[in-house]
Amino acid sequence: MVRGRISRLSVRDVRFPTSLGGHGSDAMGGAFPLQHTDPDYSAAYVVLETDAEDGLKGYGITFTLGKGTEVVVCAVNALAPHLLNKDLGDIVGDFRGFYRQLTSDGQLRWIGPEKGVVHLATAAVLNAVWDLWAKQEGKPLWKLLVDMDPRKLVSCLDFRYITDVLTEEEAYEILRKGQVGKKEREEQMLAHGYPAYTTSCAWLGYSDATLKQLCSKALEDGWTRFKVKVGADLQDDIRRCRLIRNMIGPEKTLMMDANQRWDVPEAVEWMAKLAEFKPLWIEEPTSPDDILGHATISKALVPLGIGVATGEQCHNRVIFKQLLQAKALQFLQIDSCRLGSVNENLSVLLMAKKFDIPVCPHAGGVGLCELVQHLIIFDFISVSASLKDRMCEYVDHLHEHFKYPVIIKKASYMPPKDAGYSTEMKEESVKKHQYPDGEVWEKLLAAQVN
Amino acid sequence: MVRGRISRLSVRDVRFPTSLGGHGSDAMGGAFPLQHTDPDYSAAYVVLETDAEDGLKGYGITFTLGKGTEVVVCAVNALAPHLLNKDLGDIVGDFRGFYRQLTSDGQLRWIGPEKGVVHLATAAVLNAVWDLWAKQEGKPLWKLLVDMDPRKLVSCLDFRYITDVLTEEEAYEILRKGQVGKKEREEQMLAHGYPAYTTSCAWLGYSDATLKQLCSKALEDGWTRFKVKVGADLQDDIRRCRLIRNMIGPEKTLMMDANQRWDVPEAVEWMAKLAEFKPLWIEEPTSPDDILGHATISKALVPLGIGVATGEQCHNRVIFKQLLQAKALQFLQIDSCRLGSVNENLSVLLMAKKFDIPVCPHAGGVGLCELVQHLIIFDFISVSASLKDRMCEYVDHLHEHFKYPVIIKKASYMPPKDAGYSTEMKEESVKKHQYPDGEVWEKLLAAQVN
Repeated sequence: MVRGRISRLSVRDVRFPTSLGGHGSDAMGGAFPLQHTDPDYSAAYVVLETDAEDGLKGYGITFTLGKGTEVVVCAVNALAPHLLNKDLGDIVGDFRGFYRQLTSDGQLRWIGPEKGVVHLATAAVLNAVWDLWAKQEGKPLWKLLVDMDPRKLVSCLDFRYITDVLTEEEAYEILRKGQVGKKEREEQMLAHGYPAYTTSCAWLGYSDATLKQLCSKALEDGWTRFKVKVGADLQDDIRRCRLIRNMIGPEKTLMMDANQRWDVPEAVEWMAKLAEFKPLWIEEPTSPDDILGHATISKALVPLGIGVATGEQCHNRVIFKQLLQAKALQFLQIDSCRLGSVNENLSVLLMAKKFDIPVCPHAGGVGLCELVQHLIIFDFISVSASLKDRMCEYVDHLHEHFKYPVIIKKASYMPPKDAGYSTEMKEESVKKHQYPDGEVWEKLLAAQVN
Repeated sequence: MVRGRISRLSVRDVRFPTSLGGHGSDAMGGAFPLQHTDPDYSAAYVVLETDAEDGLKGYGITFTLGKGTEVVVCAVNALAPHLLNKDLGDIVGDFRGFYRQLTSDGQLRWIGPEKGVVHLATAAVLNAVWDLWAKQEGKPLWKLLVDMDPRKLVSCLDFRYITDVLTEEEAYEILRKGQVGKKEREEQMLAHGYPAYTTSCAWLGYSDATLKQLCSKALEDGWTRFKVKVGADLQDDIRRCRLIRNMIGPEKTLMMDANQRWDVPEAVEWMAKLAEFKPLWIEEPTSPDDILGHATISKALVPLGIGVATGEQCHNRVIFKQLLQAKALQFLQIDSCRLGSVNENLSVLLMAKKFDIPVCPHAGGVGLCELVQHLIIFDFISVSASLKDRMCEYVDHLHEHFKYPVIIKKASYMPPKDAGYSTEMKEESVKKHQYPDGEVWEKLLAAQVN
């Protein structure tokens, strides 16, 4: 089925000026209020072309926040020689080997390994490969994965450094068991979609009136799960959490997100004071690197009924492995663009299954919803087979720039039907938002000078 | 004392073609034989200029392996706006704040945080700041640190995410206690230097004859501590370890280095088979991210008399904190260019002291010996006050490109006497080795084309 030799890899720096103007100050001033002030939601955007006659291209992104996108672009260019002139069939035919080749380049490995800029670049490049593969097979990515033979699937994964908790044989067994009832679960997804939660109505610093209005609107739209940002000011957190809990009532779900604000002891103290509002989880209470810190926080908060959630900045499967080993999280939040694409995310889904920890993906940003829906729909159909305590983040933002935007119905992600990984952006949007020479940025930068 | 406003930051991509020709295949083919084949020892080389009349410049490097240096250079340029037009006095006057500013840039933080490319870039930039500061004070860096008031020293450190094991007050107490006997220890260093070990004579794949010859030479030169690379082939490891142990006798020290070759169970099994050669430590047995894995390996090997050493690829203080908490290492190997310069290294030295774990720095590469000697000499004089189980790596390589190269006497690092951080390279060397347009590379690249 797979065909063509990679004849071209291009990468562009695409930025949306979400930090500027009313648009930005509304949604984004609060999106990463504690650590990521004034982000310009951005992407390193990769396009793969082949010499096949079908003319199909593979599109891949990794999400960034503005500055630094050019650094990721530079890293993508450093990886490009590994792809150029390669047969797509050879790449996906030994995908484990190719993944290892990209992540273990003898010289580039030093500036990672498998973390930060080079790993984000790896994600962008491999996301494009998966998009192209799925397109050539004429299937949406989730369906490509669901239909794939379990032996073939595990051959895409690099088990290096995780065999102490998950061997290839164990991974195969999980997938083999996941075949039972698969058809029914696929039908369930097609009919009802995958449950989502919204992060759009409880940013820091909102007035009571704004909170009430947004919350009412979300309830009307059928949302039943809400996330609120905390960590800047305890009294303000108490005010907003009380208001929201009163609005949504005791039955609906409330989550809290601290965006890495606290040190370990502070996280425990602060959350003890917010326990009365019955949050399901506290997200990113501290450094994403602090496995033992998350374990300490979990140990203190689980008895209060609060789980710990983290993952959007966990840089590879080795960190997730340890978070699971250390009982450091109760909800695992994969990210489609920080881990090494589908390959590494699959290994994390399988480890989560082994430890019986629900996966609740990180999304939002630009494109993250489009990508990660494929992974979590596959997870339900072929791995976890459960929706208990599971949901996928949703932010209603920047979808209009994608050729195949997400479809949300009754607060659920409806499975994409178009072939590919939903990664392709509208060429017009890309052109306009290229940094620094796209039309949008030329105007903005000229205005800054004047 | 401190003066001037940063008027210019330049950064260059400097590469030494150590992968090519006899030179490279000798020393380097074995330097990172398992993960880092054919490295070109390289650096992102930063120069800071000020508007002060003294004309002093600050030089900073971070070490790289060739490809990817351009990515680090790109990241340095992304950080540059944080330095330009800043008063040096304001930077070092609130060095903790400045460190936080660099590492928590609202947009750049996403592509780290504090790891990989951006953190290597942070190291290069801050190494230049420390070099400039020490030069303005007219002292070698180690002496600047030794003479600095403990309160001032701790004000340079960012305790974020480590307060659960080291508070500012505890750090101050350690430094205050370190004042006792400081003068004597400084004299001891000036007279005898800091003990080193050599990694120059037991690369993988050497024949018996070569091993014997190099080992004899090192013994003649007064070396008493030897490191051998292992992990590719067990029978070959046994052969080389037996030969070296026979050559050096039972009293001298032998260390082993696996360069992240193994998964956790494999590391334990393999090292059990090398235990008879009495290695002091096994270095980098597995992924540098695997804190719990290192703990498991330590638990299995310490009863066999083998310690675990790691650190050259540990990306920040949060990882080191956990390695200490988990009893995952018995020897801690800081790196002057991977952590966030002197600032972050100091916090790791202080945590190591608290946990009573000896620090044995990583060096070699290009410039790493020049820089890290300052840190470990300071550690002895002001923090650890002990040489027990302590030594600093040494590789006899590329020192000729530095203006103030290391001086080794009787297998010890003699404290540098020139002002600064020993980071300055000879301008002629830099020009020649700039990539891709320096003379050396123009010739090599032309030869590749032909």
